[in-house]
Amino acid sequence: MNNKSYTSVLIIGMGLIGSSIARVIKQKKISEKVFAIDNDKTIINLTKDLNIVDEIFENLQNFSEQVDLIFICTPLSSYKNIFNELNTFIQTPTLITDVGSTKVSVINDFKSEIDNDKISFLPAHPIAGLEKSGPQYGFAELFDNRYCIVTPINSNDNFIESILSIWKSFGMTVEIMDAERHDRVLAMTSHIPQLIAYSVVGTATELETQMKDEVIKYSAAGFRDFTRLAGSDPVMWRDIYDKNKEAVLEMLGRFSEDLLTFQKAIRNNDLNFLENKFSKSKQIRKIIEQIGQAGTFDPTEKTKK
Amino acid sequence: MNNKSYTSVLIIGMGLIGSSIARVIKQKKISEKVFAIDNDKTIINLTKDLNIVDEIFENLQNFSEQVDLIFICTPLSSYKNIFNELNTFIQTPTLITDVGSTKVSVINDFKSEIDNDKISFLPAHPIAGLEKSGPQYGFAELFDNRYCIVTPINSNDNFIESILSIWKSFGMTVEIMDAERHDRVLAMTSHIPQLIAYSVVGTATELETQMKDEVIKYSAAGFRDFTRLAGSDPVMWRDIYDKNKEAVLEMLGRFSEDLLTFQKAIRNNDLNFLENKFSKSKQIRKIIEQIGQAGTFDPTEKTKK
Repeated sequence: MNNKSYTSVLIIGMGLIGSSIARVIKQKKISEKVFAIDNDKTIINLTKDLNIVDEIFENLQNFSEQVDLIFICTPLSSYKNIFNELNTFIQTPTLITDVGSTKVSVINDFKSEIDNDKISFLPAHPIAGLEKSGPQYGFAELFDNRYCIVTPINSNDNFIESILSIWKSFGMTVEIMDAERHDRVLAMTSHIPQLIAYSVVGTATELETQMKDEVIKYSAAGFRDFTRLAGSDPVMWRDIYDKNKEAVLEMLGRFSEDLLTFQKAIRNNDLNFLENKFSKSKQIRKIIEQIGQAGTFDPTEKTKK
Repeated sequence: MNNKSYTSVLIIGMGLIGSSIARVIKQKKISEKVFAIDNDKTIINLTKDLNIVDEIFENLQNFSEQVDLIFICTPLSSYKNIFNELNTFIQTPTLITDVGSTKVSVINDFKSEIDNDKISFLPAHPIAGLEKSGPQYGFAELFDNRYCIVTPINSNDNFIESILSIWKSFGMTVEIMDAERHDRVLAMTSHIPQLIAYSVVGTATELETQMKDEVIKYSAAGFRDFTRLAGSDPVMWRDIYDKNKEAVLEMLGRFSEDLLTFQKAIRNNDLNFLENKFSKSKQIRKIIEQIGQAGTFDPTEKTKK
């Protein structure tokens, strides 16, 4: 694929995803200049030390240039303000895309704040991440071989193909989906597992002290996988549950019903039910491995040798 | 540490753990001979092909030698029969240890079947594993830097130190614990996370077909971590919920209460509650990383290059 080269790109939010985008753009020479904005002084300093963008600013007011392309990579609660500022700021044709984990709320925020016809926005959600937050953990290969779901506001907008090409140039497979459907699918694949992981870790922390210490000590038995998810950014996740409330509550209801059937089977010693359910789950895992979306888990420590 | 060398070791059950024990014994020259028993023909053939033991038999009846040391590495439902057979079989002093995930049931089975004073048994649970099952996935380093919990039947038995040395020689840190306490701690660190993982995967599989396909496709968003756990051996897990029923039901009750508080916070838009809980979980993760029990997760595929 031939990548179109841009003159200047602006990344708003230099966390794990924003900083990975900066790196992949530099690596693949997708833009001559890469600028960034972040309102956190620690992140600004880290970004400068990492030398992954040409310049980083604290806010849009300090930024005087017009750019070709903008990535919004901030928590969902900040979108409304950001759209409001961009609406005034942008004076030349600009492509905008984002990485937000919910899409209905993003589209609503866009529609309520933007009436600037220079802005061409394609909502997007790259399904790629890590439990770490901060620019120091980002890497260009994060997007490689992963899916990027896009949820166009109008499916016949003529700029869609241009923004799809950008995500594809990162190594991603692009899928077009309705925003409501995206939010329901992600509730199940992402928001519910994450909430449950937080909840299990929470239950463990409320045990009496000695028990809690032992749970942490012997976490290699399965609990650690839940804590891995629970290591993610609290503000990002808080916003997701706020913005995708209905779909999350629906899927949570389904999950709770299913968990009760397991509980009942254990209480009634229904071993056939358990074995049968467990075998079915094993098959799902096999499919995920076959389609190459399983990731790689190494039960040893990276730092040891 | 100086390892005592044994003349012959018998491993009953050549799954992931049994085969890893065979490998570490060979690698560290802990015994001259390593024998194995497994009642599954496929596993017998795999073990022969892997060349990790001196000889493998289908059952104890085909095995004529006496050995110094026996590892029981089979599902918990098989222990009673195995103890019964060993009680008749063993004629010379023999150390026995096991790897079972519950310890109260193992001790009960032992007491009900064994009255042979040649047998010295120390119940053990190496906290090490992987979601894969079968001898082809075992490796000698599985135990390195992991904990092994032992739950002595009589704390002043004179053979305890000998069996502890064996587990230590695998690279493990040994911890002595009361069997009831072990079962409660493991309910929280292992049995509950696993059950929840099975349940989440189950919920996803019951969605309408198109939705289910999409959940699998976009599993990299968090769901895949749950499917990793759900890839484990169904029979092994079925037995664990049978044998540790009371502790599992107690911890499940606590978890369900906590999940309801999250559900209520989402319904009531209590964002402070969520952010606060999420931040606490992040701290627990940090502790697990600090004590070197986190493992290493690589979000890319091993097979890709």
